[in-house]
Amino acid sequence: MTDGKSLLIFLLHVTVISTVDSKKNILLIIADDAGFESQIYNNTVCKTPNLNRLAQRSVIFQKAFTSVSSCSPSRSSILTGLPQHQNGMYGLQHGVHHFHSFDGVKSLPLILRQSGIRTGIIGKKHVAPESVYPFDFERTEMNNSINQVGRNITHIKLLVREFLTQKDDRPFFLYIGFHDPHRCGHTSPQFGPFCEKYGNGQAGMGVIPDWTPVKYDPDQVIVPPFVQDTPAARQDIAAQYTTISRMDQGIGLIMKELTSAGFGDNTLVIYSSDNGIPFPNGRTNLYDSGMTEPMLVSSPHHSRRWGQVSEAMVSLTDIVPTTLDWYGLQYPNYSIFHHKERTQLTGQSLLPVMEAEPIKGWDTVYASHNLHEVTMYYPMRVIRNRNYKLIHNINYKMPFPIDQDFYVSPSFQDLLNRTRVGKDTHWFKSLKQYYYRAEWELYNIVNDPRELHNLAKDPQTSSVFKEMRHQLSWWQNQTADPWICAPHGVLEDSGHYQSAPQCLSLDNGL
Amino acid sequence: MTDGKSLLIFLLHVTVISTVDSKKNILLIIADDAGFESQIYNNTVCKTPNLNRLAQRSVIFQKAFTSVSSCSPSRSSILTGLPQHQNGMYGLQHGVHHFHSFDGVKSLPLILRQSGIRTGIIGKKHVAPESVYPFDFERTEMNNSINQVGRNITHIKLLVREFLTQKDDRPFFLYIGFHDPHRCGHTSPQFGPFCEKYGNGQAGMGVIPDWTPVKYDPDQVIVPPFVQDTPAARQDIAAQYTTISRMDQGIGLIMKELTSAGFGDNTLVIYSSDNGIPFPNGRTNLYDSGMTEPMLVSSPHHSRRWGQVSEAMVSLTDIVPTTLDWYGLQYPNYSIFHHKERTQLTGQSLLPVMEAEPIKGWDTVYASHNLHEVTMYYPMRVIRNRNYKLIHNINYKMPFPIDQDFYVSPSFQDLLNRTRVGKDTHWFKSLKQYYYRAEWELYNIVNDPRELHNLAKDPQTSSVFKEMRHQLSWWQNQTADPWICAPHGVLEDSGHYQSAPQCLSLDNGL
Ligand SMILES: [Ca+2]
Ligand SMILES: [Ca+2]
Ligand SMILES: [Mg+2]
Ligand SMILES: [Mg+2]
Repeated sequence: MTDGKSLLIFLLHVTVISTVDSKKNILLIIADDAGFESQIYNNTVCKTPNLNRLAQRSVIFQKAFTSVSSCSPSRSSILTGLPQHQNGMYGLQHGVHHFHSFDGVKSLPLILRQSGIRTGIIGKKHVAPESVYPFDFERTEMNNSINQVGRNITHIKLLVREFLTQKDDRPFFLYIGFHDPHRCGHTSPQFGPFCEKYGNGQAGMGVIPDWTPVKYDPDQVIVPPFVQDTPAARQDIAAQYTTISRMDQGIGLIMKELTSAGFGDNTLVIYSSDNGIPFPNGRTNLYDSGMTEPMLVSSPHHSRRWGQVSEAMVSLTDIVPTTLDWYGLQYPNYSIFHHKERTQLTGQSLLPVMEAEPIKGWDTVYASHNLHEVTMYYPMRVIRNRNYKLIHNINYKMPFPIDQDFYVSPSFQDLLNRTRVGKDTHWFKSLKQYYYRAEWELYNIVNDPRELHNLAKDPQTSSVFKEMRHQLSWWQNQTADPWICAPHGVLEDSGHYQSAPQCLSLDNGL
Repeated sequence: MTDGKSLLIFLLHVTVISTVDSKKNILLIIADDAGFESQIYNNTVCKTPNLNRLAQRSVIFQKAFTSVSSCSPSRSSILTGLPQHQNGMYGLQHGVHHFHSFDGVKSLPLILRQSGIRTGIIGKKHVAPESVYPFDFERTEMNNSINQVGRNITHIKLLVREFLTQKDDRPFFLYIGFHDPHRCGHTSPQFGPFCEKYGNGQAGMGVIPDWTPVKYDPDQVIVPPFVQDTPAARQDIAAQYTTISRMDQGIGLIMKELTSAGFGDNTLVIYSSDNGIPFPNGRTNLYDSGMTEPMLVSSPHHSRRWGQVSEAMVSLTDIVPTTLDWYGLQYPNYSIFHHKERTQLTGQSLLPVMEAEPIKGWDTVYASHNLHEVTMYYPMRVIRNRNYKLIHNINYKMPFPIDQDFYVSPSFQDLLNRTRVGKDTHWFKSLKQYYYRAEWELYNIVNDPRELHNLAKDPQTSSVFKEMRHQLSWWQNQTADPWICAPHGVLEDSGHYQSAPQCLSLDNGL
């Protein structure tokens, strides 16, 4: 009897699996620290012919946002659909930083594996533990050289081929984590500030056979409005462009592999980046310069909108619901911690937007940052709609922290040195302004896109402030944010307070 | 040939193991948040007859210090001999806090297991991951009710018996983690603020058969100089005493089990506590009120000093070297991270002190705190010698954080309410002073034991400040402290700086 019952359950299980359409696949391409260096986003200098070609078959999102501008936290958010404060990946995964998602989190690779979908990851992973993020096929920095699996486009091409040609009838989910255009001056300065020399064929640089390096003239690059226009920054940007071009050629190779393997017509392709560019006011910030991302979504079934632009405000936390929707799967019913409320996604599937530009909704996104390196404690909570952004800086009395990687970058050194000697920085703010921030920052993002005029205490916007603060608090509550009461109160949510958690005042003079 | 070689290695391995004297055992008893509530330390009210008896066979340390006044970090330090910033257990282990030691850390249970010593833990563990802290015998909150394994002294007695009577010839290391006298009002208020009613036989409280509850009159308790002398605090202390007495009776039962099982004459017994008492200025602080610990070391082979007091300044990080010394083992040669320097202990074996009171040395201890709960970022680094203590508060512009457990305690609520209504707090400092601390605090601990007069900027002690700051920095370097440059600089230790790490200035106006 027992054996008979087991067999029955097994058969039912197989039945469930076979309901997933084996012709529906996903290819998710995430760049490392890329921004809008592409013709798709009106940058006419940095050449990205392969991204352009992909864009012709995509909806081009103009208002895509990361939920956190830091590598591991963002990647955990992409793969769980949950903000970093909810999935536990509060900062970087590697070395002394050592952040991990909670053991109870059900990530995309875990859900997909249980639903009979074959999963693969090639390139940068940067999330842990393995039990929460298990892929069937893994070629990442955990078991390879990060530059080989993340920047050597020939190597990446061959790994993609290996994955796509595996004899397996299941639908697949393949995640490519390029390490381009991440900086590398901090760890491997011999390859240049962006590893732009890595594999370029010069002495000691090795060769990436499929790569035709593209060089850029610093005088020609487009300096983003939030970066100082100086020779040092221009040279830094030129190096960044070279690695964007390498990634672009890699994307061309991958798309060719996809077509050759026969998956061109049944694969949803998503391209985006994990966080803001590693320039002043970019990565680790939740100003728009750190929070907005490129995003292309290419669906073979939605050709009506190919090449069109969408103004829908979307978040990288929408990737999980989009993926589940694509495969026809439900998000599981569970709690991350015992005795806690059911874990729910706050993102939405993008597939309806692929049908038609939405008339309403899609006008609010949230973001949440805690740390990057473990020494860089600077929790921020953000709500942004079409007109305004509200930022809550929780550790605001301390200076905004600078990471080891960005510190040694030519662009930051340039700002630091100019400030030291009292030279014009050509930057849109001072280092002092950058370091010291108000607890609450409210910006009219339409009139003041550089987020310089803080309206948090302006009586004219007091109702906006109040309403957005209320909404932000609602979202923090929805996403079980441990920082919901910080820094003025302490969250009491067990014992007497288990059924009705409260923020109790610390009266700490803040 | 291959098989022969394997056999040879195996035999050699066995030989190494058998050099550990099977008659040498260790019993380590760690109280949870206990202080000096015992006649041994001149508290004539709180009754601890069993600790008194143990003290008669022990060296009684008057100057023992924890390296961090927070549960998981302290327990990780006790078990690794490394400060929390070096072993990675930066804060609490459970729930959303989710701190873990680094995978590469070689802890005591790991080293002992590999050296053929049988290990056991009964009661509170509170460290992770399991792979770093594997005990052969585990009855902890990870697989049991914490109150059962940590406060039910009958249950603890039976578990100790189970461990001691296992048929196994190897020497043993048994770690008992009492949960008494930890607070419990935060999670299980029905048992009273310290779980003093748990198992006392009253309706709904259950029964602990071996426990004879001792009640204390709030009017009679001894209020420590760093706690306000008010009715609320006195009542809180009376409850604390009841659980100290329960633990004391438990220690009596354990010692009896040890003797009955025939290990009374060959077991080193160590008694201490993980962190300061959960009262104002205590736990989570590195003032002496949070940093000093009771400590008894009872060696059957060192009866000459039984009942004597030692003034040697010792640290809980000395427990690992003491244990290795007792078993005649070496600390392994390894690095926690690849390409990093060899990991070295900075503590020392206490066995020489068991022979004779040292004439020199034993006059400096260090401490290091990062967080407690994950929202409570407040890194501190401390050096203390016989005359002075220097504290570096790294996140000093923000208020000192208060934990969920302490917040709801009667003693803290009393302080908060008195402060709110402008009543005399009867405390030795104001809440405002408590919340806001200078970046550097230097105290003459002899003349100013309550640490109230900060000498950090006093010209008369400028050479003391300079010298101690230098020593503290040396220790941070020795222990690979990621915060060594915080908050004024950024540590660069890879790429160009790999062979000569440096603190580079942030010029952040601090
Ligand atoms: Ca990144
Ligand atoms: Ca404790
Ligand atoms: Mg975990
Ligand atoms: Mg780990």
